[in-house]
Amino acid sequence: MKATIEPASSLAQHLDRVIDAFDDELRSDLPFVNRLTARLREQRGKLLRPRLLLMSGQAVGDLREEHVILSAVVEMVHMATLVHDDVLDDAQVRRQNDTINRLIGNEGAVLLGDYLISHAYHLCSRLKSTHASRRIAAVTNTICEGELMQIDNRGNLDLTREQYLDIIRRKTASLTSLCCELGATAAGADEAIVRHLSEFGLLVGMAFQIVDDLLDLTGSQDQTGKTVGRDAELGELTLPLICFLSEASSKDRARLIDALSDGDPHKREAVRAVIAGSDCIDQAMETAQSYVRSALIHLNSLPDTEARSSLIAAAQFVLQRRR
Amino acid sequence: MKATIEPASSLAQHLDRVIDAFDDELRSDLPFVNRLTARLREQRGKLLRPRLLLMSGQAVGDLREEHVILSAVVEMVHMATLVHDDVLDDAQVRRQNDTINRLIGNEGAVLLGDYLISHAYHLCSRLKSTHASRRIAAVTNTICEGELMQIDNRGNLDLTREQYLDIIRRKTASLTSLCCELGATAAGADEAIVRHLSEFGLLVGMAFQIVDDLLDLTGSQDQTGKTVGRDAELGELTLPLICFLSEASSKDRARLIDALSDGDPHKREAVRAVIAGSDCIDQAMETAQSYVRSALIHLNSLPDTEARSSLIAAAQFVLQRRR
Repeated sequence: MKATIEPASSLAQHLDRVIDAFDDELRSDLPFVNRLTARLREQRGKLLRPRLLLMSGQAVGDLREEHVILSAVVEMVHMATLVHDDVLDDAQVRRQNDTINRLIGNEGAVLLGDYLISHAYHLCSRLKSTHASRRIAAVTNTICEGELMQIDNRGNLDLTREQYLDIIRRKTASLTSLCCELGATAAGADEAIVRHLSEFGLLVGMAFQIVDDLLDLTGSQDQTGKTVGRDAELGELTLPLICFLSEASSKDRARLIDALSDGDPHKREAVRAVIAGSDCIDQAMETAQSYVRSALIHLNSLPDTEARSSLIAAAQFVLQRRR
Repeated sequence: MKATIEPASSLAQHLDRVIDAFDDELRSDLPFVNRLTARLREQRGKLLRPRLLLMSGQAVGDLREEHVILSAVVEMVHMATLVHDDVLDDAQVRRQNDTINRLIGNEGAVLLGDYLISHAYHLCSRLKSTHASRRIAAVTNTICEGELMQIDNRGNLDLTREQYLDIIRRKTASLTSLCCELGATAAGADEAIVRHLSEFGLLVGMAFQIVDDLLDLTGSQDQTGKTVGRDAELGELTLPLICFLSEASSKDRARLIDALSDGDPHKREAVRAVIAGSDCIDQAMETAQSYVRSALIHLNSLPDTEARSSLIAAAQFVLQRRR
């Protein structure tokens, strides 16, 4: 009699195959390129996107080889955006390690990001159908738009809550949504189920980015493993700042704007402390929680399996993470 | 009786459709993104890569809708590499215009390059088969490797001729080769013909890059439309410099190395003048000519059509260009 395999351990097996597919795809005939891509391994995170893709597949059907390939592809896309993001933000630390731009310079980091995205499409084109390629490229188009909107709005202190939500929908939630969509599609789910999972991934992605931005204000570098306070330093407003600016007295608002427009790190640190102590942090957290609640509703139509429980746990994990 | 359409005018029609496909693909629902991509139009060059693709198709069969799409795709890939290249080189002028990085900053230029490459794959995934996507992604992998090799060898004054040729094969000739290959494949050419055209494109690309690098030493900004002397300034050796370093007296060699390692622009200008007056320029030009001669041999097996004559003219044009 076969023992029942827990989703956790079954997922772990598949994740190992995803990592193998990722590493195999990046292997070059040039040793120095392999030394560069080895650096990416130190930056490997929790594999949230491959997990979402695999769990979505398991929740609606059986996992296939296609799920493993697609998981490696979405992780490559994600890594590429991280590497280019760190160049754009001039970030120095990520996941307790030096960023790629710090290790090999901005030029190398731009090219290594390009190398990752190129290999993502290359790996994806191994699949028989062009469907996944088309969906992935459509989403990378959207991610680029979100990133362009973000830097276009650097220093825009009138950024609205709606604009902020549009930016994070494009730059972050579009990919988590795609992961769930592709996981379900590759398992042969019908259109209605695919739509539910896609919406689940979108809402979880929104919550994820709101929490990520919160950690930039409330976390410490030791805790988050990356440079904190960078958003405000770059003049990028996030939910707590938008809330604070809209609710603050005209005096507080003027002080905040002065600090944000000023290069003085002490002023910025003071701002961070004031906002971290305000109820705008709680309000932003409540928004994230509300996204997760809405996300979970979309799982109601799925059969009650361990994979479905894992998806619920993943959504809840997003709210609890401290790094 | 139908008048014979000259390849030139027939090609012009197809090129107009390529430009339309290019612009249509990049159109965004975000007006500021459209303002950014409009900037790319000012940087549009001679469309060498779409021309090679279309002419290769015409030389072996009939042009199809697929040729137009693929031409827009390879031009997008090319544009993306230019935009990122200008960031890596901190170049300020291209085709008599400000570079994208000068216009919108390095951050915007990195993202606009990403946006282009993403749309290239997106457009390509509209085709029924994954064949072209797979080939294009394989070549963008190779281009990234070439670019990585190039920056890895910045300041390497021992770079050999073979290493230089390997770099330009990957970063430039791989794409021109692919253009001819895809043009022929999409027209239904048999394997042997595809191989000849692919080799033709490779050798023309080698000549193209050697001449491009020569212009960086012998051209003026007015003539080439871009910043000159940047290769040497960045410590990137090209064929004439490699030749000069290998043939120079130990005194001249020491003077050259000193000037290349020094930030002083006057010293660098002096180097440029010395090399421009040496026979290393002629030797590099002879190498480019020899690549073109070898390229033309691969056209011998094609029927004697006007398209074949256009390919010959394109190869010869590479040697004559002054910008």
